Amino acid sequence: MIIVADNLTITHPDVSDAIAARNPEPIRALVMACVDAGAGAIDINPGPLTKNASEIMTFLVETVQAATAKPILLDTTSAEGVAAGLSAAKNRVIINGFSLEPQKCENILPLARQFDVDIIGYVLRPDSSVPTDEAEFYEITLSLLEAAQKAGVSHERLIIDPVVAPLIWENGAAHNRALLSFLHRLDDLAGTRLRRIAGLSNLSAGPAPKRKKQLLQRAFLPMMASAGLDMVLMDVFQKGGMATARACGLITGEKIFSWAAID
Amino acid sequence: MIIVADNLTITHPDVSDAIAARNPEPIRALVMACVDAGAGAIDINPGPLTKNASEIMTFLVETVQAATAKPILLDTTSAEGVAAGLSAAKNRVIINGFSLEPQKCENILPLARQFDVDIIGYVLRPDSSVPTDEAEFYEITLSLLEAAQKAGVSHERLIIDPVVAPLIWENGAAHNRALLSFLHRLDDLAGTRLRRIAGLSNLSAGPAPKRKKQLLQRAFLPMMASAGLDMVLMDVFQKGGMATARACGLITGEKIFSWAAID
Repeated sequence: MIIVADNLTITHPDVSDAIAARNPEPIRALVMACVDAGAGAIDINPGPLTKNASEIMTFLVETVQAATAKPILLDTTSAEGVAAGLSAAKNRVIINGFSLEPQKCENILPLARQFDVDIIGYVLRPDSSVPTDEAEFYEITLSLLEAAQKAGVSHERLIIDPVVAPLIWENGAAHNRALLSFLHRLDDLAGTRLRRIAGLSNLSAGPAPKRKKQLLQRAFLPMMASAGLDMVLMDVFQKGGMATARACGLITGEKIFSWAAID
Repeated sequence: MIIVADNLTITHPDVSDAIAARNPEPIRALVMACVDAGAGAIDINPGPLTKNASEIMTFLVETVQAATAKPILLDTTSAEGVAAGLSAAKNRVIINGFSLEPQKCENILPLARQFDVDIIGYVLRPDSSVPTDEAEFYEITLSLLEAAQKAGVSHERLIIDPVVAPLIWENGAAHNRALLSFLHRLDDLAGTRLRRIAGLSNLSAGPAPKRKKQLLQRAFLPMMASAGLDMVLMDVFQKGGMATARACGLITGEKIFSWAAID
């Protein structure tokens, strides 16, 4: 399982300040710390980029690339921002991402073909709400595959994100159980191996102590790993979570087991 | 998921000393501490009981029942010991357990019918070695169901134990992946809901730091919980593992989610 750092996000004040000041130093330091902590890729999340989209994404991609050669994920709803990031990128890039929302299918999805890169497809309804049962996860995934095919993007380029729901939502737990079952059966459904990614922090969204949030995440991550998750987007500074992720790799057979491989 | 304490075992020197001296006090104290820590049932493991089987098991069952009304598991290969435990029991009892080994089918399995109690069936070959692929898990389970039926024990009385393998074994990781897949598909195979239990500590058998063992167990437990485990046999004094088990219950929908339900 590749661990993608979710730490470079506009919601962290240090990051938003650095972006506002176009100050690369705190971002470089953050990225190097992420890699040090075990990140295999860096998600760049500057928010929706309603203005200066090209300039900000170019600044971020160049700054991240000055710190690491690891793959980068372009995590914004701005097609202009994604395109600028793709143009500036030398590292491997994944577009994060598109959904059945018409604006995203029309403006973001075609960039995956144009730049010949991987793209994440969110298992969300066209209005961005989450599906409630397993059958709907399948239907939406088929629609994502169809949309990708129409845009000339092959299923090998697609990475499915089933979108973890907050447990505090009324249907959150039921949604996440359907999600796990969906992940387990996805290959049978699709008749081929589709890669999958999920963001872990959403599980514990809401006001609660960090300790409780991390405990939930550490319990849910092995469930998703065992269901065949290829990449997880998470806080790489969460030591317990990172140790759990590595332990999962030993159990799922990604790495040969040895006691020395355990933190 | 019911948490069964594996702490009352002859392999702990305090327990073996107390058994040798027929001293109930340390055992009572241990059992009360287990219940305090969250145990929902107590496994009584006095070893193979090659002599004084009846007397020792009677002593243990009476001692445990003086400390708790929780269910007890009679965990010995001695049919005489199991029979004595069943005769002494007032609490709910589970026989732990039988396998396809002829001696167990002949001597232990019939006791489940005679005393009308639940019995655990180990997914092991008749020579007690572990199966290596998922298909063999199914075959053995079907043989366990057949043996039970022959002995007049209904499948509702049966609790399947797929027997976790040490990761340090050459085929340990592959075995445990087959085990998870087996647990996920068991109901479809059996055409009915079969209860399942597993012992967690076997995963990390071998000489290694406790910290590493516990990390592995905390990563594997959610995988089994998500695959539909009903009962887990584990060290209830492992605080992190117990917190993980409770978090699993919130994710699998066993309990309604609330932040207050998390340690």
